[in-house]
Parts: sequence; structure tokens; C-alpha cells
Amino acid sequence: MSAAAILDLGKIPSKVNPELQSERDCSSLTPYISEITAIVDGGRNNTEKRRQIERILFKDPLFRDCAIDSVYKPRDEMYARGVERSVRLFALKEEYNWTDEEFGIAVYVINHQYSLGLHTVMFIPALERLSTEQQKAKWLHLARNYQIIGTYAQTELGHGTNLQGLETIATYDATTEEFILNTPTVTSIKWWPGALGKSVNYAIILATLIIDGKKHGMHPFLTPLRSTEDHKPLPGVKVGDIGPKLTFNTVDNGYLILNNVRIPRENMLMKNAQVSREGHFTSRGPSKANYSAMILVRVTIVNWCSVILSNSSTITVRYSAVRRQSTLDSSSEKESKILDYQTQQYKVFPSLATAYALFFVSKTLKNRYLKTYAEIMKGNFKNLPEIHCQSAGMKALSAEMTVELLEISRQACGGHGYLAASALGDAVASAKALVTVEGENTVLYLQVARYLMKRFAAAVSGERLSGSTEYLCMDPIKYSCPINSPGDCMNVSLLCQVYRFRAYRMISKAARMLQRDIEGGKKQHKAMNDNLVQLVRAARAHLLYCMMVDYKESMNQLQISVPVSKALNNLLVFFTVFNIVKNAGDFLETESIGLPQMEWLKETEVKMLAEIRPDAVSLVDAFDIHDNTHGSVLGCYDGNVYERMLKSTQNEPLNQCDVHYSFHQHLKPFLQRNNTSKL
Amino acid sequence: MSAAAILDLGKIPSKVNPELQSERDCSSLTPYISEITAIVDGGRNNTEKRRQIERILFKDPLFRDCAIDSVYKPRDEMYARGVERSVRLFALKEEYNWTDEEFGIAVYVINHQYSLGLHTVMFIPALERLSTEQQKAKWLHLARNYQIIGTYAQTELGHGTNLQGLETIATYDATTEEFILNTPTVTSIKWWPGALGKSVNYAIILATLIIDGKKHGMHPFLTPLRSTEDHKPLPGVKVGDIGPKLTFNTVDNGYLILNNVRIPRENMLMKNAQVSREGHFTSRGPSKANYSAMILVRVTIVNWCSVILSNSSTITVRYSAVRRQSTLDSSSEKESKILDYQTQQYKVFPSLATAYALFFVSKTLKNRYLKTYAEIMKGNFKNLPEIHCQSAGMKALSAEMTVELLEISRQACGGHGYLAASALGDAVASAKALVTVEGENTVLYLQVARYLMKRFAAAVSGERLSGSTEYLCMDPIKYSCPINSPGDCMNVSLLCQVYRFRAYRMISKAARMLQRDIEGGKKQHKAMNDNLVQLVRAARAHLLYCMMVDYKESMNQLQISVPVSKALNNLLVFFTVFNIVKNAGDFLETESIGLPQMEWLKETEVKMLAEIRPDAVSLVDAFDIHDNTHGSVLGCYDGNVYERMLKSTQNEPLNQCDVHYSFHQHLKPFLQRNNTSKL
Repeated sequence: MSAAAILDLGKIPSKVNPELQSERDCSSLTPYISEITAIVDGGRNNTEKRRQIERILFKDPLFRDCAIDSVYKPRDEMYARGVERSVRLFALKEEYNWTDEEFGIAVYVINHQYSLGLHTVMFIPALERLSTEQQKAKWLHLARNYQIIGTYAQTELGHGTNLQGLETIATYDATTEEFILNTPTVTSIKWWPGALGKSVNYAIILATLIIDGKKHGMHPFLTPLRSTEDHKPLPGVKVGDIGPKLTFNTVDNGYLILNNVRIPRENMLMKNAQVSREGHFTSRGPSKANYSAMILVRVTIVNWCSVILSNSSTITVRYSAVRRQSTLDSSSEKESKILDYQTQQYKVFPSLATAYALFFVSKTLKNRYLKTYAEIMKGNFKNLPEIHCQSAGMKALSAEMTVELLEISRQACGGHGYLAASALGDAVASAKALVTVEGENTVLYLQVARYLMKRFAAAVSGERLSGSTEYLCMDPIKYSCPINSPGDCMNVSLLCQVYRFRAYRMISKAARMLQRDIEGGKKQHKAMNDNLVQLVRAARAHLLYCMMVDYKESMNQLQISVPVSKALNNLLVFFTVFNIVKNAGDFLETESIGLPQMEWLKETEVKMLAEIRPDAVSLVDAFDIHDNTHGSVLGCYDGNVYERMLKSTQNEPLNQCDVHYSFHQHLKPFLQRNNTSKL
Repeated sequence: MSAAAILDLGKIPSKVNPELQSERDCSSLTPYISEITAIVDGGRNNTEKRRQIERILFKDPLFRDCAIDSVYKPRDEMYARGVERSVRLFALKEEYNWTDEEFGIAVYVINHQYSLGLHTVMFIPALERLSTEQQKAKWLHLARNYQIIGTYAQTELGHGTNLQGLETIATYDATTEEFILNTPTVTSIKWWPGALGKSVNYAIILATLIIDGKKHGMHPFLTPLRSTEDHKPLPGVKVGDIGPKLTFNTVDNGYLILNNVRIPRENMLMKNAQVSREGHFTSRGPSKANYSAMILVRVTIVNWCSVILSNSSTITVRYSAVRRQSTLDSSSEKESKILDYQTQQYKVFPSLATAYALFFVSKTLKNRYLKTYAEIMKGNFKNLPEIHCQSAGMKALSAEMTVELLEISRQACGGHGYLAASALGDAVASAKALVTVEGENTVLYLQVARYLMKRFAAAVSGERLSGSTEYLCMDPIKYSCPINSPGDCMNVSLLCQVYRFRAYRMISKAARMLQRDIEGGKKQHKAMNDNLVQLVRAARAHLLYCMMVDYKESMNQLQISVPVSKALNNLLVFFTVFNIVKNAGDFLETESIGLPQMEWLKETEVKMLAEIRPDAVSLVDAFDIHDNTHGSVLGCYDGNVYERMLKSTQNEPLNQCDVHYSFHQHLKPFLQRNNTSKL
């Protein structure tokens, strides 16, 4: 077909691109793809359930282009569409009687492209967690029935990480039995909460409680912000959108200024603390359930990272199998698939392997969380610090890995990966948010590091440790590198020992440096600050070891066919080796391995690229991501990349007319200013 | 001032934020800032010239918000504004009689926020380079006088890197003395050229010349695309915008479909090859001047990377000096400046140091280019391969470093660094483009690697080398690590030896691996592909060594005061040490250093953070970047971060009314569907 014809039609060939078809025809994994899909979905029933939800959603034009249409729309329309989608989604939930889990699948299917997520993800759970039974009876029904729409407003312009620094205040007025809410300084203005700007009419406001001039800590106040009739901001409330972000622009993250806003005493959510009519304050201290909510969100982020990488790997691998450029063999007439270049594999496969790794890691972490949560519910808090450390750390490490690897694989798509229509830029931007939200990464690493320093001190003092830090009791003298031949580099159990020893040495080094500085006369806090960089390194080393163990053990529990086992094991080995080579300095420096081992590992690494290569397309097909979910012109199942790129230009506002108005307004007067004669 | 009052006024305090003022008061470098500014500008006269241009531009409202206003505008308006700015900029150039260099400064001052850059950056230079004298006489005047607006159209949907694969054809028709241009396949459609979509009326089209069915290689054809009267596409021309990109959305990168478009024979630009009336083809082969144009662009990109990092460091350092969060010392009442955290310094200072490093490196590279260019003009091509390799490699390494470090420093600004108004996301997106344009990074690394393999083979065969690869003649047996004490880690000359040896060993290893594979029976191309990852590593190692040497030597040539020398030297040492620690695995693996040295280097690294800390704000002030140029709410000279953030919300379209129309359209009907009673 000629180029002109294709563009006129905006037509996509009905057949799968032969480049992609040949990949599927040649991969021995192809017949087993559905087996992997079932693993990823958590069972064949779940796969069917997800596909059913996809069918429901994508028969509706409102959702069909959800992943990509926003790049062509001004913010204003983007938001309006996000609201429309929210409402439709809520209605579908009711119509099909979706469980919360099914609703979560629907959100994943539409790639989070809706505006009112905070209502279900934060507002309702917070109401459940923080309200008395009486309050629940009053408010939960309204929220679940969407008669009120709410969000959770904690972060302020000046404070995110340090919650103790929040400045919003709620002063009790016993004469009227009301709280008076104020954001008294510029830095106290609420800033960032999702859906706050234009959408919600209620918010749970975190504020410092003041009674008779005395501070009583932070508490949640359910506060009406807009009229439920005409949606106008209520008196004393100034609210708006904080402006565009790197992505998530369907969501109206907002600011909120409160100027003597009065709410009834009953609107303080009083599960954990009460204020009586007379202004008497009593507290049970914060509920452990609050912590566990935070932990669960972080565990969820690890999974989200896996989802982002699955999406993007689907795009980058398929495109790399379609794109041909230059030749590997100069005697060949045909250009080579870029996926056949070792360097391309080295940019694309780490993302693919990490997508699988984080899937398995998040599964294990979720199970561990559920186990610990059950213990906590029975009053056993023994494992709370451990799960807190694990979830915080894994969130940080996963998000960091995802941003880095995803960007490299985006770059591997060259210029076309720079187009918004590739959807890769947006994926990177989403991942970047995960570095900061729900605990800034470095802050989390340092929480892990502090935990490790405590555990290490306990180990040194002879305490027997359990859980992820058990190994800190080891006798390092007894370590000898277990990798004794190139073949050992394929043995993940042996490599885990290497990871463990590296972590031990990094942690003990950090402890030694701290001790040295303190013994040298530095104050504790100064010694701490002077070693933060090493402490973060130690935390990362520990977390990477934990990740390896969880990944390996989760894989071990699978009941799978031989071809699937082989393919997934290739990814496991590659991931394990890749992360040693990537952190080679640490491994050598800690003498966890020696120079010959490093040489073998690098050879194993590139060997594994070649092993993964034939199954690469099958391994992304197995994620079974709907084309409308990833939304990329480069990554569709049919591989008709170039035709889709051409078609996508029809969505560009600039192309809605042949001659843009700016020609008449600006360009023409200038071009013809000196000369009115024809050329 | 209360929060409510400030927002209502959208008022920015007239005083510098005391947090930033105290930094300036305390830095001993403050009195010497103008000395550094002069270095960066290339002399005090140039500083004055730049400021003069800033005054001219920023008294015009059209340019005042140029760096940031596009984030609030739909694509359509963004583009229109870019056209308007282009026209105004061209008019100012004429009005003030700016030289090309001064025009370049103006473009830098408005942060490239205009649409028609390709006309001056590519179209006119290409006309100059590729035209005969007769053609120049005809076309150059029209182009320089903006009577025609043009671009350079080379890249196609299916081909960027591999120019040999381009598919557009120009068939000579001797009967009419015309060329017939066609894009015969989907993949041949021109795709990416800047300003092609909506703006230009002419393009230099790269196409394969065909005469009587015989191909004669690629040549440039000056082709009218749109009517100079009404701007409508000419017959056979289908042209449009390719859709939004990660940034640069004021530019209408375009696609172009040519369907039997006829142009006169005289429109083939015939400096390097001619087609006579009768269709007789003669060629002088491509001009060396073509290569040198490509080299110059790459050299410019190294400088551009420095500019991007200067901009972003200005933002991240100032914000880090204003932002307080948590406390380092729990006994302190006041929260700590985040710039005082070692981890923050470790995220922000590498960008700052690299901004300076790349400034000096690009200066040296530019001088080397000019010297080689002068030689070439005299017919001496001896140093062409060397400068080709250097410029290609430095472009790749600089762009790679910039994307990576910039993103880390963006993350260091937490949530606020995720706001479009921070301007950091856009800076990262700009840097990402530089990885791909003007030679994809990996392709360039491999060009360098192939050059190195040749030079290494020459060295092994006893040839005496000169230039950057001279060291390949070394006898590795004679190397012993020159770092013999912690103090040696401050000695950049010694560290350069370490870099050199690492490069040598990485290169010799790659050569050995290739040789082994070929001797093992692999074909050349297979052996090559199986070692691409190591070849890229070797190229990087070589380039990093070259960068260190150029940086050090460029610094040595400065005539500067002691305080400036000390401050810049701190950055040099930090940069040198940082890049060893970052690549620790390589340095240890090649035995360029041992374990004790690595320990010392890591200690030096964090020590240097503390050395740089007091002067950090001065070091970014010295870039003297106008607030309107970086356009960030976080990075202004006055440090009134939070007030500017608040004010920026006034630009957000969603905030133009209290109640968004989507409430009435979508939300209200849903909220009230079950219940019409008031809450």
C-alpha cells in the first residue's frame, strides 16, 4: 500500500505484522503463554475475570483511548474527561456489583486515567479506620453511595515528610462545641491531596488539635469544603488546583486555605482520641491499624512498579522486534531487528526481568504483610518493625529500579520513544511519582538503615535475630565465596549467599564508621549525618538481598511446566547476575566475590541475554496487557507500529486544519513585510 | 502575612528569603561571583552583552514567561505562541543587528521556547554548505531575509540512524528537466524534522537520486512545500505535525508525504554532485565540510548539557537552601535545611559539579574542533577521525550523564520537583532528547569503540599513536596505582592516571574478547555483536578519561583568584572522585586501584561534599541565570519559593472558575442520582 493511501485512510492492517508473527511462531514458549498469564493474574479464573472487565470497559468509547487521549487534550478537558470516567466507573461498579478487588482491576485496566481515585483509595478507608462506630454509621453510607465525595488532606506546602511539622490547626471552641480550622501560614496551606482542587466536597483534614491554648497532637477532622448543592466553596474555604504535574493530570491535586472554618465537634474522627463537649481531651494513642494501612500502600506500590514495567516492556520488546535498523552482518541485504543487537537486549531485558522479579517479590511481601496483619489484629506486634522496614525499603528500591530501568528501555526506542504516543514518557513519569509518594525514597532507606543499625548492634551484643536480619549474626570470617566455576553463576542459591555477605559487610562497615565518628568525639546526630551516604548504601544492599531471596523462594513455590520454568528461570538468573554486575564495586569491595568471579558473572550476563532473546515476545505477550491499557502506538499486539504512528497524528490538534491560524496572525505579516512580490 | 492574604494578592515578597540571604552572607565566595560568571560567559564583556539581550527580551511580555507558560497552554496555543516569538525574535535580530552568536545567546535566554529554530540552525547553514555559488545567490538572500522559511528533512519514519536505509527517492525526468520526489512506502515518510509540520514553506529533502533507473546515492533537494502566498500545501504534498513529544512542544516536528512532487533540476543542491540537463551525473563525493557540520553540532550538545545542568542546579541548590524538613539534631527546635543533609548534597552536587565540568570540557572540545577545522580547510584531514570520535563520544557521555544526574537532583526536590512549575521535569525531558538526536548514544559509543579497536590494533602492531589514544601504546606491566595515601585522592593528575589505566584495560579486554571469539570460529560480525556490551563499556571508559584530562587542563589554563580557584578545584576533585566511586566495579576489576584506595576515595568523596556545601549557592549564583530563563518557582534568585508556587496556581486553567463545568455535566447528576434531599 502506498504511503499516501494509508495516511488518507488512517487504516491499520488487519494482519499481525510478520516481524512479530515470526517471533511468536519461533518461540517454543508460545504454547505456554496462558500458563504464565494465569500466574500473573493469580489463576485462570482471575484472567477470565480481568478480560470480562476489559470487555465491559472497552465497549464504552469513554474508556477506549483512556491511556493516551489525554496527551492531545488541554488540561481542562483532560480533567473533565477524568471526572466523567470516574462517574461512569462508579456506576459500572454498582451495575456489575464489582468487589473492591474487581474495581481495582478496572482501575488498572484503564491505566488509572480517572480523577476521583482518592475517594475510594483514601477517603473511604480512612473514614473506616479513624471513625467511631457512630461516625461510621453517619458518614460511611454517604461516602459509599457517592453522596459525598472526599479526600484525605495531610501534606502541606511546607511539609510532607516530617508530619510533626504540619502547621494546620483545629482550635476547640467549647462555647459553640465547634472546631475552628485554620491554615495560619503560607507553608501550612494544604498542598497535593488528590481530587482536592475541584472535585471533592469533603476532606479529612489532618490538623493539630488545640484546646485552651494547649496542643494535643495531630488528629483527623472531617470537613465540608464545598456546598453539596452548587459545589461552591464554603465560607472561609479557598481551594484550587496546584497546576500541572509530570503526569496524572486528570487528577486535580489541590491546595486548600482554611480561614476560621467551623465544624461541629462530632466531625473530629474520634476513634483514637476524643474531645468531650467541655473540651476534655482523651487519647488511646494512634491505632496500629494506621500503620498497617501505610504498610499496605507501600506493598501495593511494589506491585505497581511491576505493572508499570510489564506495560513498558510490552511496548519496548514488541517495538524492538518490529524495528529494523542497520545490519549486524554487512554481507546481509536486510537490516537487522534491533532486538538482535546485544546492546538493545541489554537495555530492554533488565526492565522485562525486573517486571517479573517485582511481581514475585510483591506477592511474597503481600503474603508476609497479611500474616503480620493477622498477628497484629490478635495483639501481637512482634513483627511490626520488620514488616514496616521491609515494606518501606522494598517500596524505595522498587521505585528506584523502575525509574532507572524504564528510562533506559524508553531510550532504547530512540526518537519514537520520545513521542507522547509511545506512552513510554508517561510511564516513566508515573514511576517517578512512586519515588516520592508514600514516603520519600531516601527517607525510607534511612529508616531501614536505622533499623539495621539497631539490629546489628543487637547481633553484636549476642542477641539471636530472626526474620530478614537473621544473617547479621553471621561470623564473617567463615565466609568464602561460593562461586567456584563459571557454572556456579547460574546457581541463584549460591548467588544469594554472595548478596547476603555483601549486605553484611556494607552494614557492618556503616556501623563501624558511625562508631568511629562517635568515639572520635562527634555527637550522635553529627556522626549520623556524616555517614548518611554509606547508610543508604547499606540499606540498599540489605534490601537487594531480601529481594533476591523473596524472588527465588516465590519462584520455588510455583507448580509449572518445564518450558515455563526454564523461561522464568532464565529471567531469575539474569536478574540476579545483572544486579551483581550493576553493583560490581560493592561486591568486589566487600570481597563477596573476587575478580575471576566478576569475569564469569559478566560472561553469564551476556549469555543470559541470548537465552532470553527467543522468548522475549512471548514473555511480554504473557502479561496479556490490552492494547487500550498500555495505549502505545509502538506496543500493540499486532505490531503495526508505523501505521499506528501515522494514524495517531490525526488526534493532534495542530492537524485539524491545513493552515494554522498563527500563519495569518504572525508568520505571513512577517514573511511579507519587505516584499509583496511573488517568489 | 496570613496565607489567605498572600494568595489573594498573588504577591511575592520584595525581599530575598532570609534562608537564601544567609547563604550569600556566609559564603566566602560571594565577593568573587562575578569572576566566575565572566569565566562562564567567556569574558566580562560577554556577560554585559548577555544581560543587555536579557533586558531587551524581558521588557517584552511575550518573552517574560517563555520558559514556563507553555505548561498551562494547550498544544495549539503553545505552537502559536512559539511562532509569534520566532517572528519577534527575528525582528529583534534585525532591529539590534545581532550577530549569529548574539542571536544564539537570545535563544538560550528564552530557553529555546520558539518554533522556527530549524530555519536558522539547520536550513540556512545547510543551504550554505550544499549549494553552488549560483544557488547561494538565488536562495540564501531569500532565506536570510525570511522570505522563505525552511527546514532540513532527512529522518524518516523507518530510518534515523542508518542513513543508507532512507527510502525517499528523487527521479530525474530529462524531458522536463525536473526531479520527481516520492515517499513510496510507509516507512519512507519523512518524520521528525522540526518546523516541518505547520511552519515551513521550503525544505531541503534528502533523497536517493535515480536517473534512468540507476541509483546515485543520497542528495539534497530544495523543495517548496507550501504556497508562499496562502501557505497551503502544494499539490502532491501532504504534511502535518507528528504529535506531542516529551517536551519541545512549541516546535511542530512534522511528517511529509511526497506524491510525484516535481521540482526544477536547479533545485538539487549541487555543490557536491551535479546532474546535467541531459541527466548526466557527476560527483565530487561528499564534502568534508558536511562532516564538520555534524561534528560542530555534537560539540554544541556537550555545551548544551552544561547549560541544562546549570539551569537545573540553580533550581535544586537554591530550593534545597530554602526548604527545611525534619531535623538532623533532635535537640534542635528548628528544622534543618535539606541542603545540610549529606544525602541531599550527594544528590544535588554531582549535577552542579558536572555542569562546571561539561562547561570546561565543551570549551576545550570546541577549541580542538576549531583547530581541526582550520586544518581541514587547508586540506589536512589527519585529525578528522580523532575529532569525529571525540565529538561523537563526548556528546553521548555528556547526554547520558546529564539525564541521569539531573533526574536524581529533580527527585531531590521531592513532590515539588514533580510539579511542572518547578521546570525540572521539562529540563529532564530536554536532556532526554539529547541522548537520541544527532546520533543515538549507543550507536555513537560503538563508533568510538570501533575506532578504539583500530587504534589498539595499531598500537599492538607497534605503531606510535598520538592524540587521545596515545596511551594505548602503554606497557600495562609498568602500571602501579599512584594513589598511595588518602591525600593522593585530592590529586587530580594522579587520578587521571588511574582513569587512563582503567580505560586501557577495558579496551584491551574488549579487544581480547573479540579476538578470542574470532579465533574460536565466530564470524567477525557475530563476534562483534556478542561483545557489544563490553565495547560500549570500553568506549565509556576511554571517554571518561578524555573528559577528565580536558577538564583538568582547561582548569589549569585559567587565570583566577585564589578563592575562585579553591572553589572550582573542589568541584574538580569531587567530580573526579565521584566518577571513580560511581564506576567502582570497573576500577577495581581492572586493578587500576585496590581496596584501600577505594575506601580512601569514598571518604574523600563525602569530605568534598562538606567542602562544597558553604559555597553551593554562590556557585549557582555565578551562572547568573535569569529567573525568566530557568522559569522555576523553586529556583528564583529571591528564594520566595512558596509564594511563587501559590502564585503559579493562578495560571492553571482549572482555577479560572470556582466550579468547574464538569461538576454540572457529570458529577452533580451522579451525586444526586439517588437522593435529592439536602445533607
